[in-house]
Amino acid sequence: MKIAVIGTGAVGGFYGILLAKSGYDLHFLLNSDFQHVCENGLKLTSKTFGDTHLPNVNAYKNAHDMPICDIVLVTLKTTMNALLPEILPHICTNQTSVLVLQNGLDTDQDVYEIVPRSKIYGGLCSLAANKIAPGHIKHVSYNTIRLGSFLSNKKDTGISQELIQLASIFEHAGITIETTSDITDARWRKLCWNIPFNGLTTILRLDTSCIVANTSTRELVYKLIQEIITIADSSGKRIEKEYAEEMLSLTDKMGPYKPSTMLDFLAERPMEIEHIFKRPLQVALTHKLKVPYLAMLVAQVDILSQSINKNAQVH
Amino acid sequence: MKIAVIGTGAVGGFYGILLAKSGYDLHFLLNSDFQHVCENGLKLTSKTFGDTHLPNVNAYKNAHDMPICDIVLVTLKTTMNALLPEILPHICTNQTSVLVLQNGLDTDQDVYEIVPRSKIYGGLCSLAANKIAPGHIKHVSYNTIRLGSFLSNKKDTGISQELIQLASIFEHAGITIETTSDITDARWRKLCWNIPFNGLTTILRLDTSCIVANTSTRELVYKLIQEIITIADSSGKRIEKEYAEEMLSLTDKMGPYKPSTMLDFLAERPMEIEHIFKRPLQVALTHKLKVPYLAMLVAQVDILSQSINKNAQVH
Repeated sequence: MKIAVIGTGAVGGFYGILLAKSGYDLHFLLNSDFQHVCENGLKLTSKTFGDTHLPNVNAYKNAHDMPICDIVLVTLKTTMNALLPEILPHICTNQTSVLVLQNGLDTDQDVYEIVPRSKIYGGLCSLAANKIAPGHIKHVSYNTIRLGSFLSNKKDTGISQELIQLASIFEHAGITIETTSDITDARWRKLCWNIPFNGLTTILRLDTSCIVANTSTRELVYKLIQEIITIADSSGKRIEKEYAEEMLSLTDKMGPYKPSTMLDFLAERPMEIEHIFKRPLQVALTHKLKVPYLAMLVAQVDILSQSINKNAQVH
Repeated sequence: MKIAVIGTGAVGGFYGILLAKSGYDLHFLLNSDFQHVCENGLKLTSKTFGDTHLPNVNAYKNAHDMPICDIVLVTLKTTMNALLPEILPHICTNQTSVLVLQNGLDTDQDVYEIVPRSKIYGGLCSLAANKIAPGHIKHVSYNTIRLGSFLSNKKDTGISQELIQLASIFEHAGITIETTSDITDARWRKLCWNIPFNGLTTILRLDTSCIVANTSTRELVYKLIQEIITIADSSGKRIEKEYAEEMLSLTDKMGPYKPSTMLDFLAERPMEIEHIFKRPLQVALTHKLKVPYLAMLVAQVDILSQSINKNAQVH
């Protein structure tokens, strides 16, 4: 069983190391860390899983050199997705299961368009992990993947036997899998949190606990979620209105938290704007829905994202 | 002719020094700079007006010690307006002309409620000046005051003989006065610029030229101005729809500019939120208008303003 990891950052590194540790044949595509990993291997530091060192890693700088794989984990940052057409066709056949472990709308659709004959799955990771040095992942907490088959018509797919088998491979490595019969519904639900909280924390440079503690911004989160529910509904995914309160009280319990978009922005790294912010807005525009709060939020994160890119050019 | 300056910062200092220089009897209310000004007087540095030093200044720390004045310039920052009921009754009679040189909605109304028998005027300053040291004002450019009589019913007042006389006092000191028959209309028009630009530059920490150069935020400015025009209309002030384009092309020509709210925020000083942002939104809510862009903007500047106040408490 050959498993490829496309993008060996915190997410790809974490799941890849655990799968390798439990005996699978892993193949890691790397970029900036390539040389370091060739020489030193990969490291995982984790209270839950113990510390792991893989001294000898199948590391690749170029997908052309990789073997055809049975399972492919797409764990690139979505800002790099333009590279996928150069990568996936080299390692995927119609027997390959491609797991798109990326947040946002239609990341699985993008992969489907590149390798339409492979079996595509969408996965939403609840994972707190960081890359703390080249090839070195620190796992903080959580490890669950919410996993479902992707069909290009975005219908409920049911929980297939193949999905259950795929889940068991991860479970064998100690990873918690929650299967879902409707990954697109799960994506919209995750957007109900990511859009307001990744968005507002980035724009305001305030963590989640500040946003929910202030009456006006708490109300803003509520209104944003109602707009997202309306957009999801227009594309056939029904989310109950009360989901907004659920997301708010979940966030109350989380304590101060800085979402990835905010961390990227503060560190002047490219921000994941397209799939989390722009595509949902695009769906609204296509259905001629009025979503002023979302429109304003997207305009704001977009100009901030562009200001980062401009800075990056200057440096 | 006794003239009081209530709040001797950049605005009060600038106009006060020019009026004193042209021979009027000025009385300055100060706070943090009081001791310094008693000892060293007031200074103005200006290419247009030359450098001026007033070595002997009638400086006051307490309004109780000030004389009854013929003209009172209210040039406090609006965040300090809660002090006005302790100040104005000591220096105003029904013969006094009170010029409220503060931006935003209803600053003149607030003063009217404190000294209803005085003659109230509203003034909108186009002035680029900074206080660069205690008692030392640097004038950069512009000096115009758009001046009009305030009536509590907010109707067009016409240009009275008294207004023209008042204007001539300032003109005698070299200050440009544009009289207006409708100061409330002028206030709404100024808000059409201040709300989107003071707001978005503060929230996004980007100057005006960035905001107008980006298609999405330029569109956002346009939509915010349309909402303000709708609110103004609901309170009887008609602004033509094309005013939005006018404000945008005006801003194109200005070049990079950081409005006062942004500068206050970046320097962690109290921000003028109430009259520029909250009151116009309140008018919309009173008239049951849907103004989502303004509502979101106000929520955002408000939480940032509160975060400053929290920091200020910590320091």
